[in-house]
This record gives sequence, C-alpha cells and structure tokens, in this order.
Amino acid sequence: MTATSTIGVIGLGSMGLGMARSLLRAGLPVWGYDIRDEVRRAFAAEGGLSVASLGDQAGGSDVLFIVVVNAQQTEALLFGEQGIAARLRPGTVVVACATIAADAARRIAKRLAEHQVAMLDAPISGGAVRAAAGELTIMASGPAAAFQQCEAALAAVAAKVYRLGDEAGQGSQIKLVNQLLAGVHIAAAAEAMAYGIRQGCDPKALYEVISHSAGNSWMFENRVPHLLAGDYQPRSAVDIFVKDLGLVLDSAQDAVFPLPMTASAHQMFKQASAAGLGREDDIAVAKIFPGIQLPVAANEEM
Amino acid sequence: MTATSTIGVIGLGSMGLGMARSLLRAGLPVWGYDIRDEVRRAFAAEGGLSVASLGDQAGGSDVLFIVVVNAQQTEALLFGEQGIAARLRPGTVVVACATIAADAARRIAKRLAEHQVAMLDAPISGGAVRAAAGELTIMASGPAAAFQQCEAALAAVAAKVYRLGDEAGQGSQIKLVNQLLAGVHIAAAAEAMAYGIRQGCDPKALYEVISHSAGNSWMFENRVPHLLAGDYQPRSAVDIFVKDLGLVLDSAQDAVFPLPMTASAHQMFKQASAAGLGREDDIAVAKIFPGIQLPVAANEEM
Repeated sequence: MTATSTIGVIGLGSMGLGMARSLLRAGLPVWGYDIRDEVRRAFAAEGGLSVASLGDQAGGSDVLFIVVVNAQQTEALLFGEQGIAARLRPGTVVVACATIAADAARRIAKRLAEHQVAMLDAPISGGAVRAAAGELTIMASGPAAAFQQCEAALAAVAAKVYRLGDEAGQGSQIKLVNQLLAGVHIAAAAEAMAYGIRQGCDPKALYEVISHSAGNSWMFENRVPHLLAGDYQPRSAVDIFVKDLGLVLDSAQDAVFPLPMTASAHQMFKQASAAGLGREDDIAVAKIFPGIQLPVAANEEM
Repeated sequence: MTATSTIGVIGLGSMGLGMARSLLRAGLPVWGYDIRDEVRRAFAAEGGLSVASLGDQAGGSDVLFIVVVNAQQTEALLFGEQGIAARLRPGTVVVACATIAADAARRIAKRLAEHQVAMLDAPISGGAVRAAAGELTIMASGPAAAFQQCEAALAAVAAKVYRLGDEAGQGSQIKLVNQLLAGVHIAAAAEAMAYGIRQGCDPKALYEVISHSAGNSWMFENRVPHLLAGDYQPRSAVDIFVKDLGLVLDSAQDAVFPLPMTASAHQMFKQASAAGLGREDDIAVAKIFPGIQLPVAANEEM
C-alpha cells in the first residue's frame, strides 16, 4: 500500500466504527460507509470522510474492510443488485471481517477473483473496546501479496494478526472454533452461577473463588461481572451466539460430526432469544434458569 | 495449634502425599497413613513418620487431614467398622478434603460434633504439582476456632485459603460449582479441538490462537498441550469427572434444577469411561469423537 492509497471501512457498527477511527488516528486516508445516515454523520463529525454512495468511492480504493454481520450481508454488498465487486479496480484487497462459515469465505474469495480482486479472510475478535483502541485480534488467511498490501491498515486496527495460511476459509474456520468455545463458556458461566445461587452460594464469593481457580475462563471472568451488577446492556448480544453457534453446527452437519456441548449451548441461547432476551447482553442466558433470584442493579433494588 | 501438636494426613495419594511432604518441609510434626503398604513405606523413606495402624495415632492428634476420594471413603474411615471418630479426643479438628456433596459435608460434620470433634469442610484444588509445592487452593468453611487451630497446617499446604462461612457445606458447594465449570471446559476443549481438526485446522495453530483469544479457559490452556503431545498419562483422570459431574447433577436433582451443559459433559465423560478410557488423562474425552486423527506422541509416529 502506498502512502496515497485509500482505505474504506464498510459497516460502521461498534466494531467497524472503532476500526475506522483507529485508521484515522494512524494518519491513513480512510473513508467510512454505513447504510444508516446518523452513523455516517457521527463519523464525519469527528473528522472522518463519510460517503453516502458506495460505488465510486469503493472503485478508487486499495483496501476495503467489510465489517458487517454475516455472509449474507457481505455477499449482498459485493454481488447484490447494487453490488460493488464489479466496480472495484483490479488489485484491490477486500478484507472480509464478518464471522462467516469457511465455505462462504471460499465462495466469496472465488467470486472476487473473477474481478481480479484479492481477499483476506479476516474475522476479528476482541469486542468494541479493543476495536476502538486499535487492538483487535485478527484471524486471517489469504495470499501473501494481499497481506503485504494491507500491512499498514492491519497494524492500525489490530494488536495481533494471526496469519493462518494462504487460502480463504482458514481464518474463518479458526474463528468458528473460537466462537464455539466462547459460546459454550458463556452458557457454562450462566449455568454455574445459576446453580450456585440455587444451592445458596453467595454470587460474589463464587466469582472471587472461581475466577482464581481451575474453573475459570476468559468469558467467565469477563461476563459474570455484568451478571453480578444486574447489567444486561449488550456489549455482545444473545442473538450473536444464536447466529454463531448455528454456523458452527451447520458446518458440522455435512460431515455428520457430533457437537454435544455446542448443541446444548445453542439451545440455551435460542431459549433466551425466544423468551425476548435476544438483544440483551449474552450473559442474560442465565435468565432461562427458573426459581432463582439473580442479582439486580443497585437502582432496581427494593 | 501448639508447637508440639500433631498433624495427621490420611490418604497418601498424589494430593495427600504432596500435602504431607509440605507439612514435613514446614517443620511441623506430621504423620501419614495410607491403606497401601508401599505408599506408607515411600513416605517413611523420605523421613516422614508413617503409621501402619490408624486408631492410636489419630487419637493423639490435633489436626487430621482426610485426603480420600469421596464421601463414602471419608465416612467409612470415620464411622465405619474400624472408624476412628470415636477414638479422637475432644477438640480435634478434622479437615475433610475430598470433593463431596454439600449434604454429605453437613452430615459428616454433624456426626463428628457428637464426639466434640470440629470439622473444616475444606475441598482442595490445584492438582498434584501444586500439592507437592504446598501451593494448593482450599475452599473452606467451618467454625473460626477450627480455622485457628489449623492455621499453621493450612499455611504449609496452601497458597490460598478461601474462608467461605461458618458452616459445613459452604466449602463443598463452591468446590462443586468449580468442578462443574472445570468438567464442562475440558469437554468443550475436547469438542473444539476435535471439530477444528475435522474441519482441517492445524491443531497447534488452534491452540496458539485460542489460548490468546476470548475462547480460552484455564482448562483449555492446561489440558490441550497433553492432547497436542498425544500424552494421556493421567494428571487427573476421566473417571474423576464421571464422579464429580455426577455429584453436581445429583445435588440438583432434589431441586429439579436443570443443568444442560453439565449433563452433556457428563455423558461425554461416561462415554469415554465406558470405552475403556476412564483412567487416562481427562482430555482423553476427545477420543470419543469419530473420524479424526488426533496428534500422536513422537515415539508413536509412523
């Protein structure tokens, strides 16, 4: 990437916006696009270049981060009715950041190649706080030349870029294994806290002891404080794991590969979502357990 | 505890032996007992006082650690045909270290109280290596006077003693919540590695990425290296989680409390045990997944 090359960030949600800001902070020429007017205006208000129409701007860019929710959105954006793939100039690199199936990553890379556009299969991890700080973890695969073209941009948004091979699908597949564990660990944290409370344990003592013991997980340590505070504002929502564990299970279906822990956790997130908790913080899956009193927020105490 | 008081360790398995050695190293007057001759002889050979008959020695001691496998063994030792409870002098403290149900801990404490013997409900955590180093975690509850009487002994065997209340059952209950998570996380680690390998991921890359990501757990980080090395020598065996997750599920049965993640993990450990893997390292639960090639030990490679 030359000093004058341009970088686009498509999708200015909590992750994409943090990435666009990090690129801006690094002094790189970045523009941002989101389907929502107010989000575009917010990015413009802090000095970002915000574009209202995607086609022309994308056609003049060297690196395009696509930070949307799923494969369907990624494909609609690239190959749909207003799809931009045909307008990209040869040599552009698309950095596909959504959590998607490995099959979908391979399919998208293949269609982009028809336009002489390379792809990094580059799902991101770390949450909105680390996105804002330019400290994401990226699990990426793709051609060496594409990595080289994106080097400055990746350095601006990520603390750690794992290079997992030359082919699309390798990045997405490891991200799915990570999501399997993340989802199972949140469901397990919810179940363990609910069970302990049912058995008469003090919730704060449970957290204190277990977060220093062999039962700890990254998710237990990160999410249980939300539960202790009775705070279900979504950092990441229940419905994210309805989607991501669904992707994991779908990917194992063709091979008829059994995933009992994943299946149980998926059922729990679906039960929570069906009960109207889909947009709450993912640890709200603890609310599916009946007959217990979870901690309540200080301002809700009776 | 006075300087001349005596401490007994009953059960010189991998945990009890480490604790007895730690007490010895701290200069405390300790004796050890195990039902197995060769284990007693080994402790004696390194300068420990080993006793062949329990009754008299126990009757002259101030603190008795009982480091056996389960509640049944603990109760047989104390209240069985040759049970020592009746021979203990009033004021003795029994430190019950097995992982047992909270109900069992309350029942044992109550029966000991009939002999004017106090109990610390004090399950241990940390594994054989930390037992040998005197760096266990102890999740303990019981009367303040009993804690005081055991202070020097607990300091010699543990890096951290959580005091979880005045009553028997509180320590055991939090230990069970910890075991719920530990067992679920091992089953999840096995499932995630098996799934990733099935999908074509490099097992070492999976470990490297996930142990630095939000999918990490204490157990993933600790056990997956055994799997990568093809090393199933038991540090802690599959059958331990057949037992411990069984205790968790039993304890929730009276209250009809659902534990879907625990139940799935328990089935996986039982499947592994039924397949003849019960005495292998607990991560051998990964061997229940069909159609994949797990890493093999260097000396087994073809």
